Order: sequence, then structure tokens, then C-alpha cells
Amino acid sequence: MKIAVLGTGTVGDTIGSKLTELGHSVMMGSRTATNEKAMKFVEKHQGKATAGTFADAAAFGEIVFNCTSGMGSLEALKLAGEANLNGKIIVDLSNPLDFSKGMPPTLSVVNTSSLGEEIQKTFPSAKVIKTLNTMWCGLMVNPGLINGGDHNVFISGNDADAKAKVKEVLKSFGWAESNITDLGDIVSARGTEMYLPLWLRMYGAGGSGVFNIKVVK
Amino acid sequence: MKIAVLGTGTVGDTIGSKLTELGHSVMMGSRTATNEKAMKFVEKHQGKATAGTFADAAAFGEIVFNCTSGMGSLEALKLAGEANLNGKIIVDLSNPLDFSKGMPPTLSVVNTSSLGEEIQKTFPSAKVIKTLNTMWCGLMVNPGLINGGDHNVFISGNDADAKAKVKEVLKSFGWAESNITDLGDIVSARGTEMYLPLWLRMYGAGGSGVFNIKVVK
Repeated sequence: MKIAVLGTGTVGDTIGSKLTELGHSVMMGSRTATNEKAMKFVEKHQGKATAGTFADAAAFGEIVFNCTSGMGSLEALKLAGEANLNGKIIVDLSNPLDFSKGMPPTLSVVNTSSLGEEIQKTFPSAKVIKTLNTMWCGLMVNPGLINGGDHNVFISGNDADAKAKVKEVLKSFGWAESNITDLGDIVSARGTEMYLPLWLRMYGAGGSGVFNIKVVK
Repeated sequence: MKIAVLGTGTVGDTIGSKLTELGHSVMMGSRTATNEKAMKFVEKHQGKATAGTFADAAAFGEIVFNCTSGMGSLEALKLAGEANLNGKIIVDLSNPLDFSKGMPPTLSVVNTSSLGEEIQKTFPSAKVIKTLNTMWCGLMVNPGLINGGDHNVFISGNDADAKAKVKEVLKSFGWAESNITDLGDIVSARGTEMYLPLWLRMYGAGGSGVFNIKVVK
């Protein structure tokens, strides 16, 4: 599949690398067509990956992964262009963490909305699926790193078909179907985004980001 | 130990019942000294429990459990009276869930503060310990109901001695020390309170409140 990965940070590199490893054709998008990190990504995955602007990547991808930092996500997606996003699945991994006012970070969108909802409102013809935003990126693509892969990932979105397609991607990353918890519509992205302050405190308490939560009954 | 339980709802009844069962002397506090639910509680635990106003209970207790609903907690504690709370541990189980604007509920205090912090600010000489607010009350006092008791409870607060005492209470409820996660100071109550929207969505997805999260590494 042709997949756009927006963002050249650790999350974009990790997701993009896994997708190329799985045989997908990945274009990494950033503000400039010759972003240094994107060039390194292309070099690392010769023949399987390309790079371009946010708009180039979004035009290329059948699915678009938003791996930009939350505070810049709406702007990055606007640069990607509504015409390039219409009808497509946007897999939104971002969190609206605002570190500009010191620690602990606050959420720039919270309580009565979420970044997932804001993206869906801004691009009403795209299918926004919020997922994977509740953990360190190494676990996103390799859940087996801890507890034999037995822990949970959440998924939120309005479109059932889009959700089913993203679930297949998650399964290809190593997630067991029984550990993919469907929380409902995109409003439920408030839940996973507002979990971040707890995640950050657990990270602080445990001294490592290599952990996740498992729902037990 | 003499313990005050403020609140006559399911949480107060569950916590108060467990505490009397463990041999503590419990006074249940409410707005009026003759609250019907408090009278039933006293009848159920004859000889071990009494009831009174919020102020009566707070004056009686060496430790004060805040089991009132979040939207009314500050008012209830003000009725309990600063003089009756000074120097004491307030175990705060409440969540600032506001259902008045429809579903999903929003948090009345969020992001840049938490109800735990607001209580601590309002009663600076009390030792506020936030805990147990991330689960259904049946699990609070009986973690063994699910997964052999192997799941997590969080604890936040500024006073190390107070936290150690509350940990002992949690252990007497059945919590393994290794599953009591100390998140740090009372600011970390933001984490556990802001987890509630995710909890509510998981409840909706699973159809039951009898679940919790286990931190896996």
C-alpha cells in the first residue's frame, strides 16, 4: 500500500520504518521537500521510501499517518492540503502536549474537545482514526517487547470501514485483535489524549517509557 | 483507628463498610446528622459505626475519607470545617465529573489543576492524599475480585508520612505493595483525574465497571 507518514521525528521514523519493513511504499512528508531527517530515512530504506513536502506525501498516500507533534498537527495537515486528504484515512497518533509553559505539560485542546476531533472537524471528508497515542513509539510497532505483547491499544473514529482497515494495520504491527480496544467515535479521543498526564507521571515514577497498560477484568 | 467517611453514596458505604469490617471505628458524615442512608449504614454496622454532620465526622476521625461526589467535595469539606481537618490526612477519592452538560461528562477542574490540588490549596494544613479514584468502588476494597488482585492503584500527595499511612490502609484493603504506584506530589492527581474520560469510555466499550488497568513493563 502507498502510505504517507507526516513528521520526521522519532514517531514518524519508527512508524515509517515498520511500514517499509512490512512491504509498504512510504513517503515521508515534512515542511520542506529536502528535510535532513527525511533524507536519512529515505537512505535507510532505499527503494522503499521517498520524501517530499506534506502535500507531496498526502497526495501520494492512500492512508496518511499523522506523526507530527500535536501542537503543529493542524498546521501540518493544512499544508498537506484538504484536497489531498479528502476521502482518505488519517491515522492520528498525535497528542496536544504543550510544553511551552513548563512542566508538567498541559493539553492545548482538552475536556470539551480533543485534537482528534479538531482534525476531523477541520477535514470533514477525511476519516480520522485516533490510535497508538498512549504509548512510547517503540511499543507501537513492537508490542511484543513487553509482557508477551499482552497489553492494550485503543482506537477511536467515526467510520467503521476506516477503523477496520486501521485495525488490520495494527495487527500487522503485532497487536492481537483482543487487545485492540474500540472506544467508539472520535469524541472518545478525549479519553486517550487526557490519559497523557497519567502516562507522563507513570513514566516519571517508573523511570522508563517502555511500559503500557493492560485492561484486566 | 477512628475514621471519618464523608459521603453516604455507594463509595462512602463501600469504604465505610470495609473499614468497620477491618475493626476501625467509623463515623459517616453528611449534610444532616440524620441522613437516611447514613442511618442505614449505622444500623448495618451496629456498635462499630456512627453518623453525624460533616463537621461531627471530621472532628471524630483521625483520617478523613472524602467519598462525596466531586462537584460537591469542596463544599462538603468546608462544612466539615478547617479546624476539624487541620493536621489530618484527607484521603480524596473524588473525581470532578460534571454531568450537568450531558454526556460525556466533562471535568470541572482540569489540565492546569485538579480537585486534589484544589482541596490541598483550600486546606493547606491538611495532608491530602489522592487515591482509589481510578476504579469502581467494589474493586477499591476488594482488588482480588479480578486478575488475582494483580492490577494497579495510584497514590498522589505531598506528605511522605501521610502517604505511607494511606499505603498501609490500601494494603489492608488487599492491595499488594508492588501494585501501589506512587505518582509523586498532589499535582499528579491531574493524571488520575484526567484518566476518567478514558475509564468511562472503556466502561462503555466493555459494558461493565468491573475492570482496572495493570501497568506492564
